[in-house]
Amino acid sequence: MTDPSSLPALQAAASIAAGRLSATALAEAMLARIAEREPVLRAFTHHDPALVMKQAARVDAAVKAGAKLPLAGLFLGVKDVIDTADQPSQYGSPIWGGHRPRSDAACVALARRAGAIIAGKTVTTEFATRFPGPTTNPHHPGHTPGGSSSGSAAGVGAGVLHLAFGTQTAGSIVRPAAYCGAVGFKPSYGVFHRAGMKVMSESLDTIGLMGASVADVALGMTAMTGFDHHLPKPGRAPRLALVLAPGQAGTPETAGLMECVSEAARKAGATVTVIALGAPFTDAVALHPHVMHMESAEALGWEIDHARAQLSPVLREKMEWGLAEPRAKLAEGRAAFAAAQLAFNDAIAGYDAVLTPSAPDEAPAGTDYTGDPMFNTLWTLLHTPCVTVPVGKGPKGLPLGAQIVTRRGEDAACLMWGEWLHGAVHG
Amino acid sequence: MTDPSSLPALQAAASIAAGRLSATALAEAMLARIAEREPVLRAFTHHDPALVMKQAARVDAAVKAGAKLPLAGLFLGVKDVIDTADQPSQYGSPIWGGHRPRSDAACVALARRAGAIIAGKTVTTEFATRFPGPTTNPHHPGHTPGGSSSGSAAGVGAGVLHLAFGTQTAGSIVRPAAYCGAVGFKPSYGVFHRAGMKVMSESLDTIGLMGASVADVALGMTAMTGFDHHLPKPGRAPRLALVLAPGQAGTPETAGLMECVSEAARKAGATVTVIALGAPFTDAVALHPHVMHMESAEALGWEIDHARAQLSPVLREKMEWGLAEPRAKLAEGRAAFAAAQLAFNDAIAGYDAVLTPSAPDEAPAGTDYTGDPMFNTLWTLLHTPCVTVPVGKGPKGLPLGAQIVTRRGEDAACLMWGEWLHGAVHG
Repeated sequence: MTDPSSLPALQAAASIAAGRLSATALAEAMLARIAEREPVLRAFTHHDPALVMKQAARVDAAVKAGAKLPLAGLFLGVKDVIDTADQPSQYGSPIWGGHRPRSDAACVALARRAGAIIAGKTVTTEFATRFPGPTTNPHHPGHTPGGSSSGSAAGVGAGVLHLAFGTQTAGSIVRPAAYCGAVGFKPSYGVFHRAGMKVMSESLDTIGLMGASVADVALGMTAMTGFDHHLPKPGRAPRLALVLAPGQAGTPETAGLMECVSEAARKAGATVTVIALGAPFTDAVALHPHVMHMESAEALGWEIDHARAQLSPVLREKMEWGLAEPRAKLAEGRAAFAAAQLAFNDAIAGYDAVLTPSAPDEAPAGTDYTGDPMFNTLWTLLHTPCVTVPVGKGPKGLPLGAQIVTRRGEDAACLMWGEWLHGAVHG
Repeated sequence: MTDPSSLPALQAAASIAAGRLSATALAEAMLARIAEREPVLRAFTHHDPALVMKQAARVDAAVKAGAKLPLAGLFLGVKDVIDTADQPSQYGSPIWGGHRPRSDAACVALARRAGAIIAGKTVTTEFATRFPGPTTNPHHPGHTPGGSSSGSAAGVGAGVLHLAFGTQTAGSIVRPAAYCGAVGFKPSYGVFHRAGMKVMSESLDTIGLMGASVADVALGMTAMTGFDHHLPKPGRAPRLALVLAPGQAGTPETAGLMECVSEAARKAGATVTVIALGAPFTDAVALHPHVMHMESAEALGWEIDHARAQLSPVLREKMEWGLAEPRAKLAEGRAAFAAAQLAFNDAIAGYDAVLTPSAPDEAPAGTDYTGDPMFNTLWTLLHTPCVTVPVGKGPKGLPLGAQIVTRRGEDAACLMWGEWLHGAVHG
């Protein structure tokens, strides 16, 4: 008999829903995987096997009682800036040590309703900003998993989680997913309600989902949002706009990777046309730090006033900068975002999607630095869906991703073209 | 010697900052007012005089130590959907009975930083929706104070609070402020960060401020947001666009009131021109219930799944409706909001501000029904600033308000023209 932990999420959930596999059996197998990997991986800030088994038993009972649970028994990681009623939420900060929220976040409630098991709270950098947690890259413990959704990406990349929630303010879903060999999907802004999330930047923060494949992510999105994200066959190859450097220079390695990916896409029938996104996109990217840090400094008002010494020096410095900047800069930044959002559909008129790097190169060595979000901030502030798909390994043997971006609201198309690209590269 | 509780907020804070009055003396006088009014008013869900006196002592110590505190010693009410670290947050629902948040909301941190005293948590309807709390109208206990920011409006209207935070998803700041004879200001969407607020509709919820005068509200906004909202003399009278019925019919009484207010404005030099806001504004208003209830039903996922029986029947019904509607309606509603937002500046080109009713007539009799937000939803979904100013009393002797609306980002101008209108009517 197959080890149930090796089943793709889609098959595992279908087997449980059909009564061919129990959530309890799946949970036991997944827990064994976690026990094996966690000492080095360190994906979790909280993981309680007994609580997991209780949830599995509840899923089995519900399935027996006839409940339709599209995510039945799947192991879901919840980034520790998102609340769960039954586990601590510590937001990557000692200021919140031992905090137990009273309720589930809105997205967690949706996941439980669909039958998912909250396998644990996953490591976040400090308040989803820069200062890293202890998580290592599942493909090499000497490298960062990326951040800020470090534990979610590492857990999915290591195969100890079927799905995981991440959040993105700059590049915190797509970059770590790419570094860990996972699929990372940031939906359109506002697809998931942020109630119960420790929101830093209201203009930017977006909840998204990671999984081992685009199909798994599509399953999760469909089950939780009520939108149909199942993957149709597109029937034709896409017209792709290749964006190499949204306002910033990439490395030759990254340019080389995109050349290979473009070549594979062309061989599979796509057109790939390099386009440049100048102003107003470069203006918006230039003001991203203002909006991010000024809004975050307001969000952390209580922490700054009551526990300043427990903020990391790097965060303290950013928050002091945000508090000192003239308030007009925030309005200017938000206006620049709005102008870029308005201009984007015209900028990619005639194309089905943007193809762009997910991150610069492979995951950097060491775990102090989670990498540069230079290929992510533009899509975050544009509020567009974006997905990274694994496209191979780099010279150090670590995963590489490529990113597909579509227009706001075209979430299903984003996943569809992401899956198409994955097939083009691996087919 | 003057009773310090009779000083306008601006003078009280200036006296304390200058060392001519102590926060302790002001607090004692204000507490006496609260003790006198609260048995009938019922503005507070939590009010602890000892905690208030402790805060006053801290303000006095800070002023002595040389701190510049623009809101020194002012009594601020905090609507009970906004967290404070030192008092319970119960969101108007038995589901959250006794809940003690660990931190202050972002806006509360800003208020404390400016020297305000959190006088108490003020009554909200259930999760800021329809089911009312026990608060009565300060001008007649047989009438509603309006809602959902019932306690904040009643507390300011009764003179037991200098300032109060409210929140608006449909008409929850402007309508109760008008019913209670207060000034109610909903700033542009996003001026206050919502961290630490029990957010229901991410697309709509806006935190705002109430006070006894426009000058007091301007003081509070300037002290907390870093923007200059002090009231310059405009130097000329405004060109006002009169909007009587944004997609809905008002009553003859409301039309009559607006005729009187327009006449006063004209006498003071304004031009007042009736304009109609048809599509796309009527389309957006028609979809307001979808966005509000569908987003709220997602926000309350945990409550719906774990404590459904403790929701009021009226809220349960709305949430079930929101969960049952096709998800595409939410995207359609958000798109309609965006289209209306884009069209608004052109629609009022050539005008300085919109003049429009704050609410239909005086506060309804009884406390079961907090009134109709028909004159508020459009401005909430447009994300524009709006302010209600008292313009007299109606046939039942209860307060009436008139509303000024400006373009998004023109918050200071909104307050300036609001003050101008108040002067025109009362001068």
